[in-house]
Amino acid sequence: MVENNFLNIAIKAKEASKKTAVLDSEIKNQALIAMAKALELNKASIFEANQKDLEEASVLLQNGELSKSLFNRLKLDDNKMRDMIQGIVDISKLDDPIGKTLLVRELDEGLILKKITCPIGVLGIIFEARPDVISQISALALKSSNVVILKGGKEAINTNKAIMNIIQEAISKIDGLPANIITQVFTRDDVAEMLKCDKHIDLIIPRGGNSLVKYIKENTKIPVLGHADGICHLFIDKSADFDKALNIAIDSKTQYPSACNSIETLLIHKDFPKYSKLLDNLRNAGIELVSNPESWHIEYSDKILSYKLVDSVEDAVMHINTYSSGHTDGIITEDKISADYFLSAVDSAGVYHNVSTRFADGFRYGFGAEVGISTNKTHARGPVGLEGLTIYKYTLEGNGQIVKDYVDGKKKFTHKDIV
Amino acid sequence: MVENNFLNIAIKAKEASKKTAVLDSEIKNQALIAMAKALELNKASIFEANQKDLEEASVLLQNGELSKSLFNRLKLDDNKMRDMIQGIVDISKLDDPIGKTLLVRELDEGLILKKITCPIGVLGIIFEARPDVISQISALALKSSNVVILKGGKEAINTNKAIMNIIQEAISKIDGLPANIITQVFTRDDVAEMLKCDKHIDLIIPRGGNSLVKYIKENTKIPVLGHADGICHLFIDKSADFDKALNIAIDSKTQYPSACNSIETLLIHKDFPKYSKLLDNLRNAGIELVSNPESWHIEYSDKILSYKLVDSVEDAVMHINTYSSGHTDGIITEDKISADYFLSAVDSAGVYHNVSTRFADGFRYGFGAEVGISTNKTHARGPVGLEGLTIYKYTLEGNGQIVKDYVDGKKKFTHKDIV
Repeated sequence: MVENNFLNIAIKAKEASKKTAVLDSEIKNQALIAMAKALELNKASIFEANQKDLEEASVLLQNGELSKSLFNRLKLDDNKMRDMIQGIVDISKLDDPIGKTLLVRELDEGLILKKITCPIGVLGIIFEARPDVISQISALALKSSNVVILKGGKEAINTNKAIMNIIQEAISKIDGLPANIITQVFTRDDVAEMLKCDKHIDLIIPRGGNSLVKYIKENTKIPVLGHADGICHLFIDKSADFDKALNIAIDSKTQYPSACNSIETLLIHKDFPKYSKLLDNLRNAGIELVSNPESWHIEYSDKILSYKLVDSVEDAVMHINTYSSGHTDGIITEDKISADYFLSAVDSAGVYHNVSTRFADGFRYGFGAEVGISTNKTHARGPVGLEGLTIYKYTLEGNGQIVKDYVDGKKKFTHKDIV
Repeated sequence: MVENNFLNIAIKAKEASKKTAVLDSEIKNQALIAMAKALELNKASIFEANQKDLEEASVLLQNGELSKSLFNRLKLDDNKMRDMIQGIVDISKLDDPIGKTLLVRELDEGLILKKITCPIGVLGIIFEARPDVISQISALALKSSNVVILKGGKEAINTNKAIMNIIQEAISKIDGLPANIITQVFTRDDVAEMLKCDKHIDLIIPRGGNSLVKYIKENTKIPVLGHADGICHLFIDKSADFDKALNIAIDSKTQYPSACNSIETLLIHKDFPKYSKLLDNLRNAGIELVSNPESWHIEYSDKILSYKLVDSVEDAVMHINTYSSGHTDGIITEDKISADYFLSAVDSAGVYHNVSTRFADGFRYGFGAEVGISTNKTHARGPVGLEGLTIYKYTLEGNGQIVKDYVDGKKKFTHKDIV
């Protein structure tokens, strides 16, 4: 009866979401602080659960059934735990994103239109083996008055359960908080059911590798916020400063090669004077260079870099707008005209001039926290913080106005903005 | 070879969209004025084409294969033509929604993050027999630097072709405007292909009845902006002023019964003193009243109204959050506490106090023009003007900054907002 189980959870989540829109900021922040305190108090039991996951994972690692990087992400240490707890405290200190007035307009005397932020509703979060995601997303959802159903990676199941139990117990003691605002599900069947649940789930946020995100995008009618590929480019213009070009290329490729904002393709202007010296230096930095048209589509997530000579900044832009995944692409140039053209013509969530693509990140942007990075063309794009978990509604307050009077010409709209 | 035809159109549209992001406001406005002038100059040929459509439609009308309201919407008269042309001129006068700076933040000295509005890309518009839509949407798309593929209702095919030819010729003379920014397609097969084209089309906007919108939402992975049902409610609280309640209920139901923002269900507080007088008055106004649970789901689009007694404002909110299509719902009350609770607890695009639901409209909200009304929970909600046709990107400008320095602790972020 997996189907009914998930449907029940989704229905309860939707019901809960009808109560969270009116939650006081105060109560939400109390709940966040309670979450942080409870995690701090119960650290030992989380580490214990994590140890269990790590033991099982190390067998898989030895058999080659789990990658080293996944294993590392699974491991919770003191630093990660401290960041996890501090992250919740930080979110409690951010402005409440709900109930913000975006517009106040007098449509006519005594007829006031307001545009006010409100929660999206029920979020479905599907993430791979990173147990720190669970507290971060739960905190962001709570702060933005959204209800959340989380499905974590099976490798972290013990850690996730331990964290979730502590969070749920902590918030259950907060007066005025509806039940079922944070739920966890565990199976692949649950994911399949979640993707079908377009009546009860308003937004899916996948956090994980390409194949996970692609699978989700292809199998649901619910809006999905995220990114599959991370094919980022760096273009070295003819007037690029050599040191900037080299340092930024190395940082963008090697600082964390498996990150989604690392570059996969280097485009070089054919008239860039020191281009062979640049390539030599990149090779010396341990980067393997490749150059063939099949490679324009490849996300290496490793110290491998495609490169291509181009005739002009226009050519570079055309290549990027064709092959980029729309995540983050940069230009290195001392020519302001080239830079301005590139910044306005490249159609990606992040377009950079003379800086490393690795800056594409919610924390580095100063958002306090992020739910992920979106390459969507609607709703939210780039690193998504609390704002991306909100939508708005219009309220209209009057004293008996009817449309007939305006259609008949008895009354006229004034349309005066007050805020 | 219908498939290839549409795919070619979509590929060309996508290519064009890569050039429109850098368009000057000046050029866009020139094109809009040229469109308006050309339509004014060629009115006669449009009326002629419309006459042809009307003749064919009147046969269908007589056979009962076309509704009277569809026939009326098909008919272009002097007033509609004047509004159509004035609408384009009005759009040319609005602020350019593209290139607006939403945020400027110093991440560190000399490292500047900007959030800037940009077009979504390629819009697919599917609309029923209203030939005035074609010029309005084309103008909105052009103003917002989006590329558009339009599919109109077959009943208006001659009028749509005439209008499109005039528009395309007018804008073809504008220097600096890319080709293929406005295209029209004609067949059901084109619609089917459009819905599959998620690589080349970024947003679908359907304008038409329930069944069209539902069909589209169920058959595409492309984001859809719009609304299917329009099940709107009016709640008469116990402290409601009788005259306001009556006038607003009549206006909300009868001013234009087939509009999506007309009410379908009246909820009445059981302690509202004059509730039987209210119902009598509504019957006298020509409204047929119905009361049974099956009717909570029905959009009558006619002078028929469901009604139900409820115990409290909380009950009313619960009914609305269960049965409303999330379009527009109102409360009539003199009690500020009830009103405030209703405004914050009802989860609809428009939530109204003491005014007619018929105000839910982009023109009445003062947006200048609208592409439609959205009941989505992401991207854009309620009446959608130019702003809903934009997204944003982040630009980051620096002078050689790399992430390694921040990770190693050599440098620190300042995160100072400048705008």
